[in-house]
Amino acid sequence: MSRQIKLAVIPGDGIGPEVIAEAVKVLDAVTAREEVTFEKTEFSLGAARFLETGDVLTDADLAAIASHDAILLGAVGGVPGDPRLADANIERGLLLGLRFSLDHYVNLRPSVIFPGVPGPLAAPGAVDFVVVREGTEGPYVGNGGSIRQGTSHEVANEVSVNTAFGVERVVRHAFAVAQGRPARRLTLVHKTNVLVFAGSLWQRIVLAVATEYPDVTVDYLHVDAATIFMVTQPSRFDVIVTDNLFGDILTDLAAAISGGIGLAASGNINPDGRFPSMFEPVHGSAPDIAGKQLADPTAAILSVALLLDHLGLTEAGARVKAAVTADIADRADRGVDSAPRSTADVGDAIVTRLTET
Amino acid sequence: MSRQIKLAVIPGDGIGPEVIAEAVKVLDAVTAREEVTFEKTEFSLGAARFLETGDVLTDADLAAIASHDAILLGAVGGVPGDPRLADANIERGLLLGLRFSLDHYVNLRPSVIFPGVPGPLAAPGAVDFVVVREGTEGPYVGNGGSIRQGTSHEVANEVSVNTAFGVERVVRHAFAVAQGRPARRLTLVHKTNVLVFAGSLWQRIVLAVATEYPDVTVDYLHVDAATIFMVTQPSRFDVIVTDNLFGDILTDLAAAISGGIGLAASGNINPDGRFPSMFEPVHGSAPDIAGKQLADPTAAILSVALLLDHLGLTEAGARVKAAVTADIADRADRGVDSAPRSTADVGDAIVTRLTET
Ligand SMILES: CC(C)[C@H](C(=O)O)[C@@H](O)C(=O)O
Ligand SMILES: CC(C)[C@H](C(=O)O)[C@@H](O)C(=O)O
Repeated sequence: MSRQIKLAVIPGDGIGPEVIAEAVKVLDAVTAREEVTFEKTEFSLGAARFLETGDVLTDADLAAIASHDAILLGAVGGVPGDPRLADANIERGLLLGLRFSLDHYVNLRPSVIFPGVPGPLAAPGAVDFVVVREGTEGPYVGNGGSIRQGTSHEVANEVSVNTAFGVERVVRHAFAVAQGRPARRLTLVHKTNVLVFAGSLWQRIVLAVATEYPDVTVDYLHVDAATIFMVTQPSRFDVIVTDNLFGDILTDLAAAISGGIGLAASGNINPDGRFPSMFEPVHGSAPDIAGKQLADPTAAILSVALLLDHLGLTEAGARVKAAVTADIADRADRGVDSAPRSTADVGDAIVTRLTET
Repeated sequence: MSRQIKLAVIPGDGIGPEVIAEAVKVLDAVTAREEVTFEKTEFSLGAARFLETGDVLTDADLAAIASHDAILLGAVGGVPGDPRLADANIERGLLLGLRFSLDHYVNLRPSVIFPGVPGPLAAPGAVDFVVVREGTEGPYVGNGGSIRQGTSHEVANEVSVNTAFGVERVVRHAFAVAQGRPARRLTLVHKTNVLVFAGSLWQRIVLAVATEYPDVTVDYLHVDAATIFMVTQPSRFDVIVTDNLFGDILTDLAAAISGGIGLAASGNINPDGRFPSMFEPVHGSAPDIAGKQLADPTAAILSVALLLDHLGLTEAGARVKAAVTADIADRADRGVDSAPRSTADVGDAIVTRLTET
């Protein structure tokens, strides 16, 4: 009997639906010969839905999504500056709403420079690292506030909350990831010389868990120094573990040096399995190019590979990665002067490779 | 009668004394023919002093330093991991102690790619921007704390404090800086979609002050997106205004893409003139290469140029910058195979240029 997997699909706004269409094509193609069926439910969420109904993420939405085995998300967010969205903050309400409600405490973001991909660095070396970003704490908790708003005496505070429970579970996950990689190196990134309380907690927990992983080499970098290494010597990184905000910043930089946000995939993971994990390209909704078949679906397709890995379908995940790698190498061979491909062209090319192999 | 300027000199630890020796040489040379005398007082502060006396920064130190017109600082911080320094946090106590006590609310960090300087980017374009980093608020205020330390129920919080007073004064300064530059562009960098209270305060104040500067073009970037542009299109930046932590991160990245932290100068400025402003290279004390005449004193020398500008000695400041620019171009001409120069060689070469012109 074939395994049934219930997949919630949230195409979202802007280029989200276009890239998700290709990601789903690839998912169907790679699993066609497997003993597994994906039962998909599409959820209409995002700026467009908010403008229609006034809802960002209802309890009913959450309950329905939570009843699935996994989630594939495109991108959410309306046109920047749209006055009708001024107070909505779709990204916070929807994206962070899902990450927090579904306890996605591991935000996994691999960075690889695929052979042939042009990037901004003159000599990046071999880049292949993964950032394990904490997803449910830090300055993202929404525990800020302000007094005397709009006056010259306004005070606006933001609180970063860090718990031993929250830090330990993500640090443990990062060590396990490092243990499973050839280089077995883990770098904690923080700002312990300034954020002394949070920094001390992170540092003590990393040192404590390290004793259980004698094979993993541990080091530490301040976040400012980490950005320097990211552009001068990115090959020094293997696994980075860091807090929610530093992870946000570092993974965009990591995507940029590895050939752009169009290739960056991510998983918002609940390793306990109590809630469905969510896979999404790191890029946003890019309303300026939406609906024109100009978006690169590669990041969404690589997010499918992460989804397959997470579900234990590692062979299928590897096949998607191999097909994407071959497609990217092919782009390089064709050169910059070749005819541009549409979003669907890229998806089709990857599907063709999958069905041929 | 010649103008007397009282300069507090804090060589500090590691390579600090070496680079400051060259910076002082250059200061003396460039002002030799000016109607100005620098009366220097040296302060022995830093890890070495702490190990001797147990003091990081006493009230007496502060009062003595505050009675000067300006401060030149090398670098502070002991050997990483030195157990005798474990609880000292020299950087926080001394560097942040000075910045906060002397109300250095503008942390000015210019980034320029000097002709001939090799950097990590394949095609950086013309890079010439300045980061105006807030220096007395944000997550740097030290308003964190923790409970149940060392237990599995520990909670460690860090509070970012942002006031209308504090944000407005640095934003005003940034607009004035932008107004005085050819491109007249100001970019606010924050993370308004997540840090909604602090972000909203920064955004409202920038928009309000913008009405007084119709010539300045204003835009906004999330900090994660800003790191992408920093490596893919750094020439888009002119003046960046941002909070203390984002400024810390962005200016290290900016230094890296412009040829390294060895060239990055900074000013910790109290524009009111109530307290002396402090000029320092962005690099740290680098204990591993200390005392070997291996450090590049260029960032310290460029900090002297910022000091001269700040004191209104703009012609002398320009002469230092020109001499450094010529020296850097010369390094490129000589090529990578030329004999390495000592710290003093670089200082001497720049002094020679100054006395020849
Ligand atoms: C859209 C935003 C809330 C989000 C974040 O900050 O986490 C995004 O930048 C990301 O990295 O997924
Ligand atoms: C040493 C440290 C406290 C300092 C900071 O974070 O401001 C440094 O990184 C800097 O940028 O001057």
